[in-house]
Amino acid sequence: MKYYVGIDLGGTNTKIGLVDEKGNIIFTTIVKTDSMEGFSETIQRLSKILITQIEGTNVNFDNVVSVGVGVPGPVLNSRVVKFWANFPWKHGMDLALEFEKNLGKPVKVDNDVNVITLGEMWKGAAQGYKNVLGLAVGTGIGGGIIVDGKLVSGEHGAGGEVGHIKIEPNGKLCGCGQKGCWEAYASATGIIREANSRLAINKQNLLYEMTKGRDLEAKDVFDAARKGDEFSIDIVDYEAEKLALGIGNLLSILDPEIVVVGGGVALAGDFLFDRVKEKLKDVAFPSILENLKIVTATLGNDAGILGAAYLGMM
Amino acid sequence: MKYYVGIDLGGTNTKIGLVDEKGNIIFTTIVKTDSMEGFSETIQRLSKILITQIEGTNVNFDNVVSVGVGVPGPVLNSRVVKFWANFPWKHGMDLALEFEKNLGKPVKVDNDVNVITLGEMWKGAAQGYKNVLGLAVGTGIGGGIIVDGKLVSGEHGAGGEVGHIKIEPNGKLCGCGQKGCWEAYASATGIIREANSRLAINKQNLLYEMTKGRDLEAKDVFDAARKGDEFSIDIVDYEAEKLALGIGNLLSILDPEIVVVGGGVALAGDFLFDRVKEKLKDVAFPSILENLKIVTATLGNDAGILGAAYLGMM
Repeated sequence: MKYYVGIDLGGTNTKIGLVDEKGNIIFTTIVKTDSMEGFSETIQRLSKILITQIEGTNVNFDNVVSVGVGVPGPVLNSRVVKFWANFPWKHGMDLALEFEKNLGKPVKVDNDVNVITLGEMWKGAAQGYKNVLGLAVGTGIGGGIIVDGKLVSGEHGAGGEVGHIKIEPNGKLCGCGQKGCWEAYASATGIIREANSRLAINKQNLLYEMTKGRDLEAKDVFDAARKGDEFSIDIVDYEAEKLALGIGNLLSILDPEIVVVGGGVALAGDFLFDRVKEKLKDVAFPSILENLKIVTATLGNDAGILGAAYLGMM
Repeated sequence: MKYYVGIDLGGTNTKIGLVDEKGNIIFTTIVKTDSMEGFSETIQRLSKILITQIEGTNVNFDNVVSVGVGVPGPVLNSRVVKFWANFPWKHGMDLALEFEKNLGKPVKVDNDVNVITLGEMWKGAAQGYKNVLGLAVGTGIGGGIIVDGKLVSGEHGAGGEVGHIKIEPNGKLCGCGQKGCWEAYASATGIIREANSRLAINKQNLLYEMTKGRDLEAKDVFDAARKGDEFSIDIVDYEAEKLALGIGNLLSILDPEIVVVGGGVALAGDFLFDRVKEKLKDVAFPSILENLKIVTATLGNDAGILGAAYLGMM
């Protein structure tokens, strides 16, 4: 049996896992990334943890074929991180080389949402499909595009940076500094902004009662809406409309077989997605929506590890 | 030497050409499509014209390897036309099979703008590139997406249907029946609509003088703007902003190496594209715009033939 390592390198925590060629997980472990200690130091420490973990299993390190890594940020040539989101590390570092020096195995790197999408294609909600649009709707909106089984990573590693498509000319200010970005409206952050903006002038609603005296979360809006709060249902409709606007654009361009949605907002489930599907009829052609599947990601935290392992395998 | 046939099947005219393996054109001919006579009859007649034309050359028909066809409409599995734009033919016909019956050669079919983009990649403005976004900006806006040298045709043959991405929520009505489509703003038709709408309340300008008593064309706006007409320059700025909005979204999603723009509006050249590049800075990330090439298509009418020949070759 052959084995593959998957690493999901995050700003706070890093997930490390070992997977067999069939996608069975041998182990996963979560460690603090502690990127402040420096690039080489961190990669060396993570590599040592990985090797120690593998020694604790029945798997011989010689049978580990390759290593895949997902990182938050654009990646060039499956190796070089063009710039780091949330890491105090130098831009343009060859992360694959650094792991290769420590592990002596071939390493491939890609953007974390791209990698998650690969994972969902290999072992999750998009199993059996080859043309997949993956979306991670949380603090921001990330995307992963798979065409014919392969990632569209882009010339500058920015393929699938769908959170920053503009859905409204000169629209809401986004964290990126530009205006009208999709994620300024449809991410969890977008929901919170919209809810707070509406709450500023309307306090006669359940959402206000529920969140009085604390910070509002996107989940509160869905919870209140499920309880019948019209004020919150309106915000869910707003969210569905904005999600549909971006998804519709992606469908018109890519015409995928399946859309897999992960991230915190996806936890709202059909309560949200039934509305999104309804709104999609106004912004995408019927022929594109024919038999289209829009599903929730199923692998959760394992998606990054499985996807990274699969990336190394490709 | 091996030879390849390229056919650009249009609503009014059909272009037929023979190309050698290096992309040298042996002949091209333009015939009336006359689709009213029926699907089988038309394909049979076009096939006979092709064979007769080849007999008039030094090329032996046995040395013709394959045939490629571009059609206006979505194409499934490189064979079946899901529905015809501008043809009175039944939807879902296997056009490849019909040509194969008449020609005895393997045939591949794809959407016409996809095929043009292939042509520009093989022998035109995108030669040497493998990640190409092709745009045809004329009456509408069509797109062709090439990733890693291969077309993204989509699950329903609608890959690259970029004219109908929404750039404004509930925006201008589009010919497709939906609202806010990119082509409702940035196509030649969009320019004409905008110009006429502005002319209705402002006749103190050169554009009005130039077009009084006749229908306005998009070209008039560029001509008047070049002569310094501020009213028309404003419309060119509007066009540049709307073009940039859609192109920016496509760049964020696909991150291509090169964008090739053809169609009537592209004839405006740098006068328009310098403005588009400036506006792009507001709607696409600097990292995506780094070294990005935005160029005018160079093959003109031959793009469809060369692209179709190349499609058959793939």
